[in-house]
Amino acid sequence: MIVIKIGGGAAISDGGYSNFAEDLPTLAEPAVIVHGGNAEFSRLSRALGMPPRMVTSASGRITRYTDAPTMDAMLMAYCGTVNKRLVATLQGAGVNAVGLSAIDGRIAWGHRKPVLRGVEDGKTKVLRDDHAGTLEGVDTRLLRLLLDGGYLPVVTPPALGEDGIPINIDGDKLALKLAVALGADGLLFFSDTPGLLSDQEDETSLIREIDAAFPEAALAAAGGRMVVKVEAALGAIARGVGWVRFADGRAEQPISRALAGAGTNVRRTGGATGNAQPNTPPNLPDQPRTFGSS
Amino acid sequence: MIVIKIGGGAAISDGGYSNFAEDLPTLAEPAVIVHGGNAEFSRLSRALGMPPRMVTSASGRITRYTDAPTMDAMLMAYCGTVNKRLVATLQGAGVNAVGLSAIDGRIAWGHRKPVLRGVEDGKTKVLRDDHAGTLEGVDTRLLRLLLDGGYLPVVTPPALGEDGIPINIDGDKLALKLAVALGADGLLFFSDTPGLLSDQEDETSLIREIDAAFPEAALAAAGGRMVVKVEAALGAIARGVGWVRFADGRAEQPISRALAGAGTNVRRTGGATGNAQPNTPPNLPDQPRTFGSS
Repeated sequence: MIVIKIGGGAAISDGGYSNFAEDLPTLAEPAVIVHGGNAEFSRLSRALGMPPRMVTSASGRITRYTDAPTMDAMLMAYCGTVNKRLVATLQGAGVNAVGLSAIDGRIAWGHRKPVLRGVEDGKTKVLRDDHAGTLEGVDTRLLRLLLDGGYLPVVTPPALGEDGIPINIDGDKLALKLAVALGADGLLFFSDTPGLLSDQEDETSLIREIDAAFPEAALAAAGGRMVVKVEAALGAIARGVGWVRFADGRAEQPISRALAGAGTNVRRTGGATGNAQPNTPPNLPDQPRTFGSS
Repeated sequence: MIVIKIGGGAAISDGGYSNFAEDLPTLAEPAVIVHGGNAEFSRLSRALGMPPRMVTSASGRITRYTDAPTMDAMLMAYCGTVNKRLVATLQGAGVNAVGLSAIDGRIAWGHRKPVLRGVEDGKTKVLRDDHAGTLEGVDTRLLRLLLDGGYLPVVTPPALGEDGIPINIDGDKLALKLAVALGADGLLFFSDTPGLLSDQEDETSLIREIDAAFPEAALAAAGGRMVVKVEAALGAIARGVGWVRFADGRAEQPISRALAGAGTNVRRTGGATGNAQPNTPPNLPDQPRTFGSS
């Protein structure tokens, strides 16, 4: 079983959904898809006269302020447009997909943090009625029921907060938590880059492989948002997911390509366990460790 | 098993969802909810600069023109805002709801009619790229899987058209087809009226009961949109659904009230079968036939 995270960048649009839909029937094992929707969320928010409001916390973390009307826009973009367009495209390709938010069947829940403190446009702000939250738990019962029934679950944020209030959670973290809870063999992260880059401005600076047994080197080479993604991947492997791969969601046959070796592969090739076998993705030839640009 | 259709009128809003959420745990039998979203769809379309375009066919039927951007707005309103707000409210009340469109798991499919001919604003038009469709079939496998797993399915249009294109179908017809296919004991229609009215302008003109064995009288008393609803209810009963009830979706404890006798009850009290017993809703005292205003 693998978990496939499809990023919500603008470059992975309807054309991208078709690439995934045509590629999925070639996948031999069951899968759960988790997707984002940030580009559509921002586009819709602007169209509704609510441009994204970004707030920087004291620790330097940038978060999006999500008041109640913005949460409605999030529901529209993530659970409406993106989830159903993706599911319809999958159905058109013969894949019996079922689209869900993490609210449905209590797939994921968390703690709402209604007060957001930080700096917006250079000014210190205390913003109330925020709908951001921290992901605390997942329940895979519904996903297992659907997988056993032969369906492909397609899951998106938001998650369920206290008192039935939807909360904005990070899609990458949702994918990770689900992969761990489902005991997934592997976790594929698709976004609008060829994989993890040592230089974000240079798509040829692809990092081919990260050895989870030596996380310090990997984290030292990572920069910006990549640090969060590398930390997440390392966390998944530490908690039993065999391998994590970052690959290009804009490519044709994106899943086949990633499973055949494209992108950045994160796995434990040495160190404590000494057994690399369970960490090898299917179809993946054992590659020389080429940490750094290739 | 009963099917509960919750109309998409503006009067059934978040407050209305709470009423349903608090009332559902009192229901002794499994249920499937089908909902509309027309008021939210129209509100959102206007906010996005795409006010509803209504076209009258040669036969006098009024339909809404749904081009691709309008279908996106439909996905946002029905599958995003309304479906997820309703599911989140149900989850907040302890009901383990799962929100789905009829696209998901191929719950319902139909034939798309991409060309819409008719009169708009007094002018004869031929509008292309319409996403309206005719509901042709339903597959209850996913709903049964969820019901067997202890979940409450919450289903909304659109449905799946050819080539994975979402099509705009009528929510009442979806509820009917599902009730028939599921072999439902009963079907509850909630909208923003006390039930079927003999005078649409007068909420006191409630029709208490319609005998499905004598449809001519019922149809003669119905007017406007009510004709479609009465025909649908009669069709459901003709195809094995025990009873159909039209009740007030704005009320507190709407389900309990409807099951206890409020609204308009459609059933076969006499005629061909001669056995009224299976047609009696649970908790419903056998009432005198009071066709007409009460």
